[in-house]
Amino acid sequence: MAANARFSARTVCEAKGLSCLSSELEETTEKVNRFIERVVSLKSEPKLLYEASRHVVNAGGKRLRPYLVLKSCKLVGGREEDALPTAVALELLHTFTLIHDDIMDEDEKRRGVQTVHTRWGVPIAIVAGDLLFAKVYEIITKFTDPHHVSRKRILQVLEGVSEATIAICEGQTLDMMFEGMENISEDEYFRMIGAKTAALFEVSAKCGGILGGARKSQVEQLGKFAYNAGVGFQLVDDVLGLTADEKLLGKPVGSDIREGKRTLMMVHALKRASKEQRKTILGTLGNKQASPRQVREVVGLVASLGSISYAEKKAEEYIKKSKKALAVFPDTADKEDLISLADLIFARKY
Amino acid sequence: MAANARFSARTVCEAKGLSCLSSELEETTEKVNRFIERVVSLKSEPKLLYEASRHVVNAGGKRLRPYLVLKSCKLVGGREEDALPTAVALELLHTFTLIHDDIMDEDEKRRGVQTVHTRWGVPIAIVAGDLLFAKVYEIITKFTDPHHVSRKRILQVLEGVSEATIAICEGQTLDMMFEGMENISEDEYFRMIGAKTAALFEVSAKCGGILGGARKSQVEQLGKFAYNAGVGFQLVDDVLGLTADEKLLGKPVGSDIREGKRTLMMVHALKRASKEQRKTILGTLGNKQASPRQVREVVGLVASLGSISYAEKKAEEYIKKSKKALAVFPDTADKEDLISLADLIFARKY
Repeated sequence: MAANARFSARTVCEAKGLSCLSSELEETTEKVNRFIERVVSLKSEPKLLYEASRHVVNAGGKRLRPYLVLKSCKLVGGREEDALPTAVALELLHTFTLIHDDIMDEDEKRRGVQTVHTRWGVPIAIVAGDLLFAKVYEIITKFTDPHHVSRKRILQVLEGVSEATIAICEGQTLDMMFEGMENISEDEYFRMIGAKTAALFEVSAKCGGILGGARKSQVEQLGKFAYNAGVGFQLVDDVLGLTADEKLLGKPVGSDIREGKRTLMMVHALKRASKEQRKTILGTLGNKQASPRQVREVVGLVASLGSISYAEKKAEEYIKKSKKALAVFPDTADKEDLISLADLIFARKY
Repeated sequence: MAANARFSARTVCEAKGLSCLSSELEETTEKVNRFIERVVSLKSEPKLLYEASRHVVNAGGKRLRPYLVLKSCKLVGGREEDALPTAVALELLHTFTLIHDDIMDEDEKRRGVQTVHTRWGVPIAIVAGDLLFAKVYEIITKFTDPHHVSRKRILQVLEGVSEATIAICEGQTLDMMFEGMENISEDEYFRMIGAKTAALFEVSAKCGGILGGARKSQVEQLGKFAYNAGVGFQLVDDVLGLTADEKLLGKPVGSDIREGKRTLMMVHALKRASKEQRKTILGTLGNKQASPRQVREVVGLVASLGSISYAEKKAEEYIKKSKKALAVFPDTADKEDLISLADLIFARKY
């Protein structure tokens, strides 16, 4: 039944490029969701905690990280089922960081629904995130079968996941620190998003490789692929945060401006701006009470300074670099899928 | 040099019971602190994050959990150095829960210093806790030597740690939920502290056993010992929260009352109280603005209803049960030390 569904999805979308990928992503989403249903069950007690933990997972998300894990595993000849627990775990790790980030950034909406702390309060949101983080390790240790994946590799996965989470914490701290600083360089920006966003992409692909039995050099190339795709993802994310359709985006357009986020566009615009323009930008940047008109004015300014197209160009460069890292692998359907994923990351509208 | 220091501490304190134990605890503290200095280094960037993460660790603490890990390992014939990374990791796990709990409970002081969120704000406190949690797994995977401890056992440790953390999250949620509820039963109270506090004690001793090469039945007994000691610890903690010397306690006496915590004493007192007394207690319980006079009045009432001595009696029972679980082990100095630890937990003044 599942195999049939899979086959038909493949058949229908064959040679359709991105739309094909999106039905593959849907399959991954289904598999991941079923697994989450089981391991973070809404029947667990206290109900309140599990409902809060599942809220953001249930609201959607693209499941890009699990997809990276599963595809990377298959690319190196591994069995998808050996990578599934880690794929699920990394989606939960991602969700945990979203729940905590939303508290820190005081965001009220995510994926079109209320954020966890807005709905249940900060204390429950903190502990709901903590629970998901603990689940990450429980799932990997409990469900990865040591008869198929050596314990040595399982431990490598766990170590990699921990290092990535440490990077995420460091990146999130930098992100918050930058909000209060006037002059951030491009290097600082890239270091920040490398840690905050790209490290999790990187470890997802690496774990897939490790679980699939890849050689060290293959794991490294998978890491390079996903790290660069992750940087591209964040650049596009920042652009969409200013330009997307609010309904598709699932959160207020321009919230990055109100929160004072130092995106590449802001870094670029502040460097290019005249004294007067700089004053306008800094007057709105980080002003939580800024009106929609003020936000629109800043977006217009940033666009007119060429900063949006600059960020898009950079995103394109990283996506190119990303795909280049896959050159060492033979041309297979799985490699094609990873390349399509990188393209989707660049072309997405939300 | 280290061996010498150890020997002399042993010699000096021989046959002195509790004071002997306390110098043993000091030794553990030194070892653990040195390790933490290295793995959560204040030289790491961003400095702000690492300072915030280290703040509560640096402020003191009894290092009971690392002591449990190390002693349990030795009790079953293992090498202390094989258990040290996990001992350190579990102290950091404990610290992470303290940092997050302090945010949730809005506590301003801990170990005589400002809590992390009071000093650096809630966002940094959240991410500082998250960092320590990630460090837990990094340390165990990176520093446990698979030449001395089988990877199977290392994975068992990681799974146990994850399960304990899940229990802690569930217990902390119950603790917060109970604050808003009038009638909590003793069973509910014990379930809550079993998860919130005793699970971490339990896993500490179990991990020590696993790392020391213990048989399954030995691991179970160590778990029973520490679980019951943990329940005793929390009962004593609750009593001290109402009766201790504030300077020794390191936080305001009576804060549990202002926060509306359902301790065993409160559960007991509310069941025993007359209608009038119940009204007095509930009028102050959970009132953050309660005056010192009001808090003293409730403490007096709780004492007069026999609830403090009831909790002390229960604590004694659990400590007895705890020590009984060690009966299966031969009488060695390490067993003696664990028994002294249980006694110290009961006899401590802060």
